[in-house]
Amino acid sequence: MGRVTVRRPVLRVSTDGTRHQRPDTLAAEEPLEIRVGGRALAVTMRTPGHDVELAHGFLLTEGVIGKPDDVRTARYCDSVDGDGRNTYNVLDLELAEGVPAPETGVERNFYTTSSCGVCGKAALDAVRLRTRFSPADDPMEVAPELLATFPDTLRDRQRVFSSTGGLHAAGLFTSDGSALVVREDVGRHNAVDKAVGWALLAGLVPLAGTVLMVSGRASFELVQKAAMAGIPLLAAVSAPSSLAVDLAEEQGVTLVGFLRGDSMNVYTGTSRVVRSPIQSSTAGQGP
Amino acid sequence: MGRVTVRRPVLRVSTDGTRHQRPDTLAAEEPLEIRVGGRALAVTMRTPGHDVELAHGFLLTEGVIGKPDDVRTARYCDSVDGDGRNTYNVLDLELAEGVPAPETGVERNFYTTSSCGVCGKAALDAVRLRTRFSPADDPMEVAPELLATFPDTLRDRQRVFSSTGGLHAAGLFTSDGSALVVREDVGRHNAVDKAVGWALLAGLVPLAGTVLMVSGRASFELVQKAAMAGIPLLAAVSAPSSLAVDLAEEQGVTLVGFLRGDSMNVYTGTSRVVRSPIQSSTAGQGP
Repeated sequence: MGRVTVRRPVLRVSTDGTRHQRPDTLAAEEPLEIRVGGRALAVTMRTPGHDVELAHGFLLTEGVIGKPDDVRTARYCDSVDGDGRNTYNVLDLELAEGVPAPETGVERNFYTTSSCGVCGKAALDAVRLRTRFSPADDPMEVAPELLATFPDTLRDRQRVFSSTGGLHAAGLFTSDGSALVVREDVGRHNAVDKAVGWALLAGLVPLAGTVLMVSGRASFELVQKAAMAGIPLLAAVSAPSSLAVDLAEEQGVTLVGFLRGDSMNVYTGTSRVVRSPIQSSTAGQGP
Repeated sequence: MGRVTVRRPVLRVSTDGTRHQRPDTLAAEEPLEIRVGGRALAVTMRTPGHDVELAHGFLLTEGVIGKPDDVRTARYCDSVDGDGRNTYNVLDLELAEGVPAPETGVERNFYTTSSCGVCGKAALDAVRLRTRFSPADDPMEVAPELLATFPDTLRDRQRVFSSTGGLHAAGLFTSDGSALVVREDVGRHNAVDKAVGWALLAGLVPLAGTVLMVSGRASFELVQKAAMAGIPLLAAVSAPSSLAVDLAEEQGVTLVGFLRGDSMNVYTGTSRVVRSPIQSSTAGQGP
């Protein structure tokens, strides 16, 4: 277990006709089956490592658990490969007494409700019904100058990306700019689940006053994960989708996209992105 | 239905203190429930449009169908929103007689086999058991000079990306450089399913002699989709994962990564990437 990178030979080819073989470092990808009380709940393709955090983050952001004590034990099952070795790819979590086990097919239930078909609004409703914390009233503020430093910090702390170029990253920052945790994974959602799961186990959930920064785009599911963890601001290097903006607005999450260089787009919750105190005395704070 | 983009106001903020509000165009994201014979099989968050192709591509690359005739009908169910309007977010496919309906939970079954636990090898085995076409013996060859033009062609044909910056793309190319189809989606897998589903409905599957080009990374699941559609070469702008390379090798798919500018990495099936005839008479063809 825990192989985060794998070495492989690669043929480097250029259009000028040069070809040479050299070793390359790849991001590892392996399936992880998450079980609850012995029953399979989900299989995700992830980069091995921080699996317990990943499973906690997944269960939190899907609404199954709300605090660390909701999980009694987490252990790797004795799933073995052809050579009889434990694969460390099956993690079974035992919920505490009184915590209802999730139905199988969490995802399907999340987007569809019997009342109103399958639509964006049903997806928004499903999140609203499951949230335990409300980011809407979080009074946090952050200066754009500070936000603009987060992508570089995230990249600097991506140890595996620098050797493979193949991993997404998610980082949790305080509003004064400290990075609480940075996690990497071949899957965007997994990187967020690992970071949020770390925070849950550290007793930091709900994550009031924090920023979740992701390396790619902001989808509906990433906003869902932020809202479920009580995070008031989600910042992404790339574009958000329409439903991500809709959900951020409904949940009171500030959504920042295209955070690159010296500028950014603020789609929702604009009042949280304010100039630093010294400057803001002479400038308006926008809508 | 079919709203591919959505307009929203956005606050553009710079670190020099400027703030101005302007309209922005976002990529649309909505849930799509794919049903087979009335039973829900999967829900995916996708950009509306080309849903019938998406569903065909999904069923093909998951091993449920192998040819267009395996699906008798595809129709939007009467799923309605709060205002009584069809959401066009539930698509039901009726399989032809004799085509076995898939078990629910396709994904879970794909990565796990009872014989050997949950591991990379089991995932490879699962694909091998389901493939109907073998890209391994496909004699296609493509020149690196030609491959190097595909990212620009893909980008040029991404109509929605240019207005939103928020979509993945997948394109099918012939080995002489013609683009057969380009599809976009907020989800990487959906873009591939739409392109492959288009090809299935056009009678082009198995896609011998073609290149599948994707805008992002190459994961296990994208190699799976290429192999299941009989595509001999998958090219990605970014890095592949370890399991993507393992699967490409086992399935005889040529895997090209970091296809940018004038160079590329060839991870597997290197003999298919050869210099153009005029040049290759004076140069070796590598390993």
